[in-house]
Amino acid sequence: MSGSFLDAPLSGFLSALASGSATPGGGSVAALTGAQAAGLVAMVCNLTIGKKAYAAFEGEARELLAQAEARRAELAAFIQADTDAFDELMAAYKLPKASDDEIAARKAAIQAATMRATEVPLAMAAAARAVLPLCGPLAQHGSRTAVSDVGAAALAVRAAVPTALLNVEINLASIDDAAFAERARAQAAALVDGLDEQVAEVLATVRARIAG
Amino acid sequence: MSGSFLDAPLSGFLSALASGSATPGGGSVAALTGAQAAGLVAMVCNLTIGKKAYAAFEGEARELLAQAEARRAELAAFIQADTDAFDELMAAYKLPKASDDEIAARKAAIQAATMRATEVPLAMAAAARAVLPLCGPLAQHGSRTAVSDVGAAALAVRAAVPTALLNVEINLASIDDAAFAERARAQAAALVDGLDEQVAEVLATVRARIAG
Repeated sequence: MSGSFLDAPLSGFLSALASGSATPGGGSVAALTGAQAAGLVAMVCNLTIGKKAYAAFEGEARELLAQAEARRAELAAFIQADTDAFDELMAAYKLPKASDDEIAARKAAIQAATMRATEVPLAMAAAARAVLPLCGPLAQHGSRTAVSDVGAAALAVRAAVPTALLNVEINLASIDDAAFAERARAQAAALVDGLDEQVAEVLATVRARIAG
Repeated sequence: MSGSFLDAPLSGFLSALASGSATPGGGSVAALTGAQAAGLVAMVCNLTIGKKAYAAFEGEARELLAQAEARRAELAAFIQADTDAFDELMAAYKLPKASDDEIAARKAAIQAATMRATEVPLAMAAAARAVLPLCGPLAQHGSRTAVSDVGAAALAVRAAVPTALLNVEINLASIDDAAFAERARAQAAALVDGLDEQVAEVLATVRARIAG
């Protein structure tokens, strides 16, 4: 698949995903899932803003919209960035290893590329997680007819964060820098801390508003 | 957004999602998330087939691939179908209601469209759920370098199924046909039964193979 995934047809992204090429893979899926979460939050903000019934919430809805759109742009860019980081890692593995110098240079390139392929999904998990705090107030006070879409956003965050972190986990296994690995593990742990509980809270609010 | 979402750029789908139009919404997101799950399973099958190390599993991998590709096609089509079903429901609400005949015709059209907007996400949830049984054997016996992508697929199923069912839930609230509603509720309950546990099993297998 040539060019950026964002500019190509959606069907092309799905076909490239299913193909026997390792990219795009789970990392790009995490980014797209996170971008969908942010997009759903933005939609519900847009369906809330300008409606008389939600006038008291309009200021907050505008702020939530700005944040959702910032996260959406970030996460959409990660769809491609994750694939690029993985491709660079694969390229490093293909470097020559005929001499001691080449072996050392290849090892250093692999380490650098593995760190990059760890930082990208960590940053993407953080961006996806940042969508979740937008969901609570929107589920409570936003457009009731679109409240199920806030629940859909929370469920998408609950998929995107651990999916991105699976890539962090798999790459940390081959990183020599213990301090880097420890820092990354701590960041990953913080990003899932309380995630399921906060998603469950949003869903409970959504269900209460659907029922009531 | 004109034409099919599948033929339009991925960025266009995300922009349409974020816009103040109610479609595409959570239903299309569920379908795309499910299609991504199926795509990831297909990718790992493709990365397994033809590799000496996995020769004993190749026959099964080919069967899993065929099933994953069938589910992917089905779920990709639901991205548009869900939006179409919702748009038809909105059109029914806009029918004239000046006379008793018009009121009765409008009510019947709304009921028919609401049923359709319930059946589509139910069918999409079933298709997404059907991806999960493909993940277990693939996580256990498929390509180890791509095993995190099987975990990503399971996490996508765990998002797609309840997201689609939120739309079922919200539409059932306005369906008069009690037998239809009861049947749909039973189907929805069956589709989430054991879901989290089965996803957790797949993730445990993935983590064990990453570790070892």
